[in-house]
Amino acid sequence: MAGTEAKAKTSDSKPAKQQQGGGKKKEVKKETRLGLTHRKAENFGEWYSDVVVNAEMIEYYDISGCYILRPWSMAIWEIMQAFFDPEIKKMKIKNCYFPLFVSPGVLQKEKDHVKGFAPEVAWVTKSGESELEIPIAIRPTSETVMYPYYSKWIRGHRDLPLKLNQWCNIVRWEFSNPTPFIRSREFLWQEGHTAFATKEEADAEVLEILELYRRIYEEYLAVPVIKGKKSELEKFAGGLYTTSVEAFIPNTGRGVQGATSHFLGQNFAKMFEINFENEKGEKAMVWQNSWAYSTRTIGVMVMVHGDDKGLVLPPKVASLQVIVIPVPFKDANTQGIYDACAATVNTLCEAGIRAESDTRDNYSPGWKYSHWEMKGVPLRIEIGPKDLANKQVRAVRRDNGAKIDIANADLVEELKKLLDNIQQNLFDVAKQKRDECIQIIHTWDEFIQALNERKMIFAPWCDEKSQLLFLLVWLSDCGQL
Amino acid sequence: MAGTEAKAKTSDSKPAKQQQGGGKKKEVKKETRLGLTHRKAENFGEWYSDVVVNAEMIEYYDISGCYILRPWSMAIWEIMQAFFDPEIKKMKIKNCYFPLFVSPGVLQKEKDHVKGFAPEVAWVTKSGESELEIPIAIRPTSETVMYPYYSKWIRGHRDLPLKLNQWCNIVRWEFSNPTPFIRSREFLWQEGHTAFATKEEADAEVLEILELYRRIYEEYLAVPVIKGKKSELEKFAGGLYTTSVEAFIPNTGRGVQGATSHFLGQNFAKMFEINFENEKGEKAMVWQNSWAYSTRTIGVMVMVHGDDKGLVLPPKVASLQVIVIPVPFKDANTQGIYDACAATVNTLCEAGIRAESDTRDNYSPGWKYSHWEMKGVPLRIEIGPKDLANKQVRAVRRDNGAKIDIANADLVEELKKLLDNIQQNLFDVAKQKRDECIQIIHTWDEFIQALNERKMIFAPWCDEKSQLLFLLVWLSDCGQL
Repeated sequence: MAGTEAKAKTSDSKPAKQQQGGGKKKEVKKETRLGLTHRKAENFGEWYSDVVVNAEMIEYYDISGCYILRPWSMAIWEIMQAFFDPEIKKMKIKNCYFPLFVSPGVLQKEKDHVKGFAPEVAWVTKSGESELEIPIAIRPTSETVMYPYYSKWIRGHRDLPLKLNQWCNIVRWEFSNPTPFIRSREFLWQEGHTAFATKEEADAEVLEILELYRRIYEEYLAVPVIKGKKSELEKFAGGLYTTSVEAFIPNTGRGVQGATSHFLGQNFAKMFEINFENEKGEKAMVWQNSWAYSTRTIGVMVMVHGDDKGLVLPPKVASLQVIVIPVPFKDANTQGIYDACAATVNTLCEAGIRAESDTRDNYSPGWKYSHWEMKGVPLRIEIGPKDLANKQVRAVRRDNGAKIDIANADLVEELKKLLDNIQQNLFDVAKQKRDECIQIIHTWDEFIQALNERKMIFAPWCDEKSQLLFLLVWLSDCGQL
Repeated sequence: MAGTEAKAKTSDSKPAKQQQGGGKKKEVKKETRLGLTHRKAENFGEWYSDVVVNAEMIEYYDISGCYILRPWSMAIWEIMQAFFDPEIKKMKIKNCYFPLFVSPGVLQKEKDHVKGFAPEVAWVTKSGESELEIPIAIRPTSETVMYPYYSKWIRGHRDLPLKLNQWCNIVRWEFSNPTPFIRSREFLWQEGHTAFATKEEADAEVLEILELYRRIYEEYLAVPVIKGKKSELEKFAGGLYTTSVEAFIPNTGRGVQGATSHFLGQNFAKMFEINFENEKGEKAMVWQNSWAYSTRTIGVMVMVHGDDKGLVLPPKVASLQVIVIPVPFKDANTQGIYDACAATVNTLCEAGIRAESDTRDNYSPGWKYSHWEMKGVPLRIEIGPKDLANKQVRAVRRDNGAKIDIANADLVEELKKLLDNIQQNLFDVAKQKRDECIQIIHTWDEFIQALNERKMIFAPWCDEKSQLLFLLVWLSDCGQL
C-alpha cells in the first residue's frame, strides 16, 4: 500500500551479517564487552544496525532482507496494536483475514497499480515436487486480493460503508538496501480497506486515520511527524491522492515516510466493478480508501531516539519501563537489598508500572547498568546499603542520565511522574532537533546548499498549488511564519 | 506442527464454488430466500459449506483451498486470542515474529521432520521477472526456521528456559479435500516453541498447554474434547511424543484433532546444536516442546453446534451476543418501539453485553429472525407493542428456541444468566451427544460394526501400554467404568 517508501535510507546495509544465519561460531559481543562499535554521528548506518541487534530487537536471518523480530521489538508492535485496534473498532471498522496468495489475473487488473508493484512480487511456482499450473503471487498489498469480493458483497446503499482491516504479513522482494524495520522483504502491518457511498465520507476518513497515525508516532513513539499530501510521483500506485505522516532523521537529513492513508477515488471500483444501487434506485460506484502502518514505525523510533549507549525507549511503548538493580556492598545486608528489590518490583507492578529486577549473580551492577541502557529501559532503579538505610531508592533516567533519590513512601507517585516526564521530554527534544533542521528556501542554489547540510527543506512546490498552501499553513501553525 | 491432522473429513469439498472468485453474476441467496439447502443429518459436507458461507464466516476464494475469514469468524479468533495470549504471558512465554520464508538447507536439516512436510511445501522461485538463485520455502511450521537461532541465543543455563510464541499464517499445499477452517492451504495459528534445561520442565509444560487448549474448546467453544497421546504413526514428524485434544463430530462419526502439544525431546536440539553449559559447567543439550492451535477450532465449533437453521454461537465467542429486533404493528407506537430498542441496546452494552439492534426498514421481522438465526446469535430480543405496554421484552434462545418474557427492570441480570445458561447448555448437549456415541469394544468384529455405526470407539491398543492406561483412567473419570 505504501507505494513510495523510498526515503528511509541508512547509509549502509549489512550483507555480510545476513549470510551468517544461526550457528555458534560467532563472537557474542554482550559477553566480551558492552557498548556499540559505531557512533550515531559518525557512521549512522552501522550504528543503527548495531543498536537493533545489541538491544535484542532484531536478529539477522539467513535469507537476505528478512529479519527476526525478537520479543523486545514485538512487544512494541503489540502495544501500538493495543492502541490502534480499539480506535478503529470505535470507527466501526472490522477485522478480517484475506489470503496471502493472489492469482495473476486479479493482480494485473489495475494497470498503474500492478506497474508499481510488479518488480517486487514474489511468485510461488511449485508445491512439493510439482509445478503449479499457474504461478501464484504473494500479496505485496491486498487491494486486488480484496476488491473482487467487495464487488460481490456490496449491492445496495445499505451495504455501505464497508470498512475492513487486517493485521498481516506482506512481501515485497526489494533488492535495494535492506534495513531492519525500515525496508525488509517481509514485514508486518495493518491494512484498512473501506468503501463509501460518497466522496465526502471517504475524504473525511482519510484524515481521521492519518490523525491516528500521527498519534501513534507522537503520543506513543514520541516521534514528531508532519502530516501532508504526497506528490503525484510519490502517491500510491492506482490511487487518486496519498496522505502521509513523515518523520525526519536529523543524522541523515532524510525524511522517512511514517504511514500512509490513501484516497483511491473510484479507480479500483471501476476496474473491479464495485457498484451499488443508491437511495434513488440508480446504479452508482463506491469511493474507496486504503491505509496502512507497518513495523517500520519501530525503526523510525530507534533512529530518532537512540544514542551512543544504544536504544532509548519511550515509556509508553517499553515492555519494561523500570529495571531494578541490587547494588550489594561487601559487608552490607545483601539479603535486605535483594528483598527491597523484590518489594519494589511488586509495588510497581501492582501500580501498573512494568518493572522487573535483575538479580543475576554472575554480572556486576556496572555491567547491568550498561546492559539495560543498551536495551533502552526508560528508568533504572538502584538499591544499595545507603538506600536501604535511608528508606529510599535511586532512580536514573535513560533519556538524560539524571539521578534522583526517591523516598519509598513516594515511590509509585514519583515514578509515574518521571515516566510521563521522560515520554514528554523525548518528544520535545526530538521536535527541537527536527525543527532546527528546517530551512525555508526560495532558490535552487539555496535548495542544493540546504540539502548538503542535511536540512529539512520547505520550498515552493508546483506539483499542486494546495501543496504550497499546506506548507504555508503548517509553517504558520508552528510559528515559523 | 500439527503433523497429522488427517481426521476431519467432511464428506464433500466444494471445488465448483471455489472457482467462482468474486464477481456479480451469482445468485445471492440471502435476498431470494433464507435457510439452508442441505440438512445436517442428511448431507453433512454440503450443510457445513452452506453454513459457513451463509452465516458470513467464510467466502470461497479464487485460489482453491484458500478462504476469506470474514469479520463474523475473525471476531471468534480474536476472542480466543484474548484468552490464550494473556494466559501464556502469565507463563512467561513471550511473543516474537520469525520470517515466513525458509531456506532449503535449513528446512531439510531434520530428516523425519522434512519427510512429514515436504510434499506440501510451497516454493517461491521468482521475484518480479527474475528467477531466484535458490528456491525458498514458505513455512509449513517454524521449527526449522527458529531453532538455528535458539542455538545462537542459548549458551548457558541462565538463558533457559527460552519460551517464545508467534501468531502467524502457515502454508501447507494440501490437495485432499480442502474444507473451510478444517483443512485449508493457508491458515492462522499460534505456535509456541520452548527450550528447557530439564526433561521434567518440558514434560510439565506440554500438559499445561494442553490444558489451555482444553479450556479454549470446552470453556469458550463449548465443545467437549478428550485429552490424549497420539500413536507413533500420528505423532508430530521429528518429535518424541504428541499430545492433543480431540473433538468428535457425531454426524460423521469422526474425530477431529483439535490442537496439539508436542514434546520434541532432544531430537531437534541435536540437529541444530542447541547446547548449553549447565550449572556444573558441563555441556548439555536442551529439551524442547512445540504446540499450536489454529483457525480449525472455529470449524469444529460450527460442526458441533450448528443446526438446520444455520450457525449456533456459544455466547463467550459471539461478537454479537444479543440482537434486538423491533416488531412494529400497524397502528401501534412505532417510534416508541424503536426508542425502546435503542434504549435496550444501550443498557446491555453498558453492562458489557455485546448487543445491537436491526432497524433496517426493508426487511420484515420474520426475515430478520431467520437472518440472525442463520448467523447464530445466541439471543434474540423482540420488542413489539405489547412488550412496550408491559415494560418487558421477549427473549428467544438460539440454542433451544425457548421464549422468555423479561421485565425491563430485570433485563441485565436475567440476560447475563441466560447467556451463561446457553453457554453451559451447548456444552452439556454436545457432551451428551458425544458420550452416546462412545462404544467400548473388545474384538475386531465389534470394532468394524461400531465404526459403521459412526461410534467413537474405545479399544485395547497395543501401540503403547500407557495408551490403554490412559483410556482406562479417562473412562473411569467420566463414569463409564
